[in-house]
Amino acid sequence: MDAYNIEDVEALVHWISSFGMSETGGTNRLLYSQAWKDAQNALKELMETNGLITSFDSIGNLFGKLKGTSDNQNVILTGSHIDTVIEGGKYDGAYGIVASFLATQILYQKYGLPKKTIEVVSLCEEEGSRFPLTFWGSGSITGKYSLTDAQQIADANGVLFTTAMKNAGFDPLTYQSPHRTDIDAFIEMHIEQGIVLEQSKQSLGIVDHIVGQRRFTVQITGESNHAGTTPMPFRKDALCLASRYIHYLTETAKRVDPDLVVTVGKLQVKPNVPNVIAGEAEFSLDVRHYNDSVLDQFCTEFRSYFLSSAEELGMYISMEPWMEVKPVSMDPKLTLLSKKTAIANNISYRSLASGAGHDAQVFGEYCPTALLFVPSDKGISHSPKECTKKEDLENGVRILVDYLYELAYA
Amino acid sequence: MDAYNIEDVEALVHWISSFGMSETGGTNRLLYSQAWKDAQNALKELMETNGLITSFDSIGNLFGKLKGTSDNQNVILTGSHIDTVIEGGKYDGAYGIVASFLATQILYQKYGLPKKTIEVVSLCEEEGSRFPLTFWGSGSITGKYSLTDAQQIADANGVLFTTAMKNAGFDPLTYQSPHRTDIDAFIEMHIEQGIVLEQSKQSLGIVDHIVGQRRFTVQITGESNHAGTTPMPFRKDALCLASRYIHYLTETAKRVDPDLVVTVGKLQVKPNVPNVIAGEAEFSLDVRHYNDSVLDQFCTEFRSYFLSSAEELGMYISMEPWMEVKPVSMDPKLTLLSKKTAIANNISYRSLASGAGHDAQVFGEYCPTALLFVPSDKGISHSPKECTKKEDLENGVRILVDYLYELAYA
Repeated sequence: MDAYNIEDVEALVHWISSFGMSETGGTNRLLYSQAWKDAQNALKELMETNGLITSFDSIGNLFGKLKGTSDNQNVILTGSHIDTVIEGGKYDGAYGIVASFLATQILYQKYGLPKKTIEVVSLCEEEGSRFPLTFWGSGSITGKYSLTDAQQIADANGVLFTTAMKNAGFDPLTYQSPHRTDIDAFIEMHIEQGIVLEQSKQSLGIVDHIVGQRRFTVQITGESNHAGTTPMPFRKDALCLASRYIHYLTETAKRVDPDLVVTVGKLQVKPNVPNVIAGEAEFSLDVRHYNDSVLDQFCTEFRSYFLSSAEELGMYISMEPWMEVKPVSMDPKLTLLSKKTAIANNISYRSLASGAGHDAQVFGEYCPTALLFVPSDKGISHSPKECTKKEDLENGVRILVDYLYELAYA
Repeated sequence: MDAYNIEDVEALVHWISSFGMSETGGTNRLLYSQAWKDAQNALKELMETNGLITSFDSIGNLFGKLKGTSDNQNVILTGSHIDTVIEGGKYDGAYGIVASFLATQILYQKYGLPKKTIEVVSLCEEEGSRFPLTFWGSGSITGKYSLTDAQQIADANGVLFTTAMKNAGFDPLTYQSPHRTDIDAFIEMHIEQGIVLEQSKQSLGIVDHIVGQRRFTVQITGESNHAGTTPMPFRKDALCLASRYIHYLTETAKRVDPDLVVTVGKLQVKPNVPNVIAGEAEFSLDVRHYNDSVLDQFCTEFRSYFLSSAEELGMYISMEPWMEVKPVSMDPKLTLLSKKTAIANNISYRSLASGAGHDAQVFGEYCPTALLFVPSDKGISHSPKECTKKEDLENGVRILVDYLYELAYA
């Protein structure tokens, strides 16, 4: 058994990134791919060599157990996901697994076995990058998903989910429910994937909520016409109305709540020709906040504004909701422990909401859960440019060591 | 010689539309195509059969002369263009040729030969629908273009302009300059292609100016980022800024001058994904007014606003001008004559600026020119749905008869 310490964190993250690294430096570990399989097997070996009792569940979640001495057989689960987006970064997911692994090593070396069992988890899937299904790992452990949710779906190359699963060594015929009922808490360390910590010059983010999301497709039907011969008052310009809406959305979001984020990322115009007034415009709308009532208020306001503006201009509008994810709160006691641990370690921290989805949001609906962030350089993520400074990576492990001590040893 | 009268106008327009009509009812007479050639030859025969002395110039403009009795050999030229856009309507261009032809017939039947020579012209090209060159017909007659302007250019199928010209019977080897110096005035009757006449319930539009046009490509560079993890104040959302600009353009256009028209018809966003903040946006900008100083004022205002807004938000903007066409005034004496003729015929009229380009704008820089509009149903043009009521078609011919009488017989 090697003696790992906090300073090894960056090297271990880089080592995991070697599984699935492309020529352009992007990390590619899509669910059940060869790189994914290699990474999970290598992690299993690392855990075993270093004293953890390892096991895969029937869908490929990897567990490394440090068995507790008390009679209570329930566990503290800690870790993150091993899969990545296409051409992702080194830190997203992998850092959380490495931090949890290192924390158990340091704790064991210093204090021996814990009272309460700690399990490090390398969750098989979170991103939804290969198949149209997200949180397959945490969703299966918490009983949200079962095999039926994964049947009938295929990847972009037409490979069935179940075929990919079988080829990776997890034959659906031997499927046994990964649903567990022995988890007392889930602790996830993750990179922020945003710029809040960097902007506020703080080293640790203590997530109190994971935002709810609502997504819409908005379609405007105006009237395509000649750009030269149609006076301004006679126009039914769909792009003009779309612009008015987008402008309104941005201004209203700022007014309603500072934590509300509203994004129009996709816009398409028809016929999309310089000298023809746009007859149609369609855009996506993504609204996020940690408080459902703020989402309700905003959505009611914009719907009413959209409808009245369109009517006033004699245009037609449709607003199609196609995603609704509820906000999830992290456990208040665990959040308080996070703060105490940060203070004890003299590490600057702040509370924040997570604007992105994480496994912690699935666990948060199932057991007391904590989600902790370390800073992302320039907020960049899902990119080969993703980076977190060595010092920040190490601070995260330092926090996790004390944190797990409080939960499993104290 | 048949006896044509005003009531024949609709039938003659429909007859011309049979050359190049598609199965879906669109008219297609692209320059030098078979349908174009058939139409010009049929018109030549019609003119000849009905007493006009016909000739083609070396690029395919067709002239039908009603020779004047006076010693002055200069001519009154009247007509419009025979070419169409792809899947265009029956009236655009063709109506002007038919109206001019019918007017000469009615005048000759009633008054015999004119003092001053009248020539009906079927201009070979105005739309620029086949080759990247517009006003080839009027531009060649007025000396704006020569064969060198048409060399080296090809259509979408790679057919050279000069090859198409040769195949239509106009061999570039026999090219002789179509430039004429004997034109005293050009009179063009055209459909409005807009809804001003219909909205104001008037039967005749007397064009006093043809608008100037300025076109730009505006590029905004912001910062692509995560839609969930980037708080609103930290965003550099290129689509948000584009929307603010488009909103500003519309509002400012209305404020600056009621006759100013401003169109953003084309917009492209990158990466154009629902959950990613747009890093880049590019849009077209088309600005038109009949007064250059209004164009100057508007362009100065928006440029200054664009630059300061982008700077304020830490984004980068470029504004590339790629078209500038000067406004052209129609001849004031001819405009006055138009009004007198309308009043004498008890036809309701209004002055207006033409927001679209016409052959009259090329002639307007070369000789006294008049441009007259009849209403377009719902303002629709460049579409198989293009339509002008029979009564309006006839009123246009009625006006032209009296108009040409004043210029050539009185």
